[in-house]
Amino acid sequence: MNFCSVCGAPVALKVPAGDSLPRHVCDSCGAIHYRNPRLVVGAIPEWEDSILLCRRAIEPRYGKWTLPAGFMENGETVAGAAMRETLEEACARIELGDMYTLISVPHIHQVHVVYRSRLLDLDFAPGVETLELRLFREDEVPWDEIAFRTIGITLKHYFADRRAGQFRFHTEDLTVAPRHPTRIA
Amino acid sequence: MNFCSVCGAPVALKVPAGDSLPRHVCDSCGAIHYRNPRLVVGAIPEWEDSILLCRRAIEPRYGKWTLPAGFMENGETVAGAAMRETLEEACARIELGDMYTLISVPHIHQVHVVYRSRLLDLDFAPGVETLELRLFREDEVPWDEIAFRTIGITLKHYFADRRAGQFRFHTEDLTVAPRHPTRIA
Ligand SMILES: [Zn+2]
Ligand SMILES: [Zn+2]
Repeated sequence: MNFCSVCGAPVALKVPAGDSLPRHVCDSCGAIHYRNPRLVVGAIPEWEDSILLCRRAIEPRYGKWTLPAGFMENGETVAGAAMRETLEEACARIELGDMYTLISVPHIHQVHVVYRSRLLDLDFAPGVETLELRLFREDEVPWDEIAFRTIGITLKHYFADRRAGQFRFHTEDLTVAPRHPTRIA
Repeated sequence: MNFCSVCGAPVALKVPAGDSLPRHVCDSCGAIHYRNPRLVVGAIPEWEDSILLCRRAIEPRYGKWTLPAGFMENGETVAGAAMRETLEEACARIELGDMYTLISVPHIHQVHVVYRSRLLDLDFAPGVETLELRLFREDEVPWDEIAFRTIGITLKHYFADRRAGQFRFHTEDLTVAPRHPTRIA
């Protein structure tokens, strides 16, 4: 951020009175511009003993596999965002189940939330951000080709819980640096 | 948003190519400024059969009672934000328990998350945004003086679950308009 979005004047990074962290402050109009983490929301679309994964048609992680997920928008509920992203990326209609994982990713200012869900039919098709879609059984999941660590963690929990016969809500923090030299989770 | 935070030029509200919703777009530098919901994170500080509430020293809802909670900041985990807010508003040290409620509040572009927690001692004191603090047993809670609807919902779940002898994670949406003519939840 270089300029004030309210008045257009240049902003400076400084600690406002009564605050403890540096913020983008506008000396011209007095606005303090806070920045907050964003929610990335998605779903595990289930069909019998398989789940639907999307191969990404965009960067980052072009060509890698992921669950349908994306940034929650203003005016949405978290559940609504999961259904919209699944429709946009996989043209898939789902019945949403319980919230399943919530993972903080502080180094990129994100919180990733994934729901369980049930595919209502097999009429899915790649959206504009997706190269291809495929149903995977557990032994078919391309573990070395999963796009994001939070998605890999979610899928590991999913198959472990399914084997144990009981699904439970998982919250955790992804605080270590990624293995690969990129700025994505 | 009136001006581009990247280059300082005026922005226009329009639907970018390939998008479906109007965004603040800068024709000068090409930046598209997305706006996303914010997370408000707090805790239920428990002590024996009581919980700690804060009476607000700031608007909105000056003088009303609430749980320690506030906007999650960049660089934090969700759990870290809950502990920081409890320290800031009640100078209270807690041991964080499970995530307890997650409530979407789409009309104000927020998601409210509350954890269960255990007060480590009784050395709490009002922070700068708090008039006073008090431990309440269930029959003492000032239900008509609770600052925000999501906090009231969380406390109702809490005491109901406690009476039932089992706490579970609650997710829901607060989509109806508030009873009072304000823009807060
Ligand atoms: Zn300004
Ligand atoms: Zn610009």
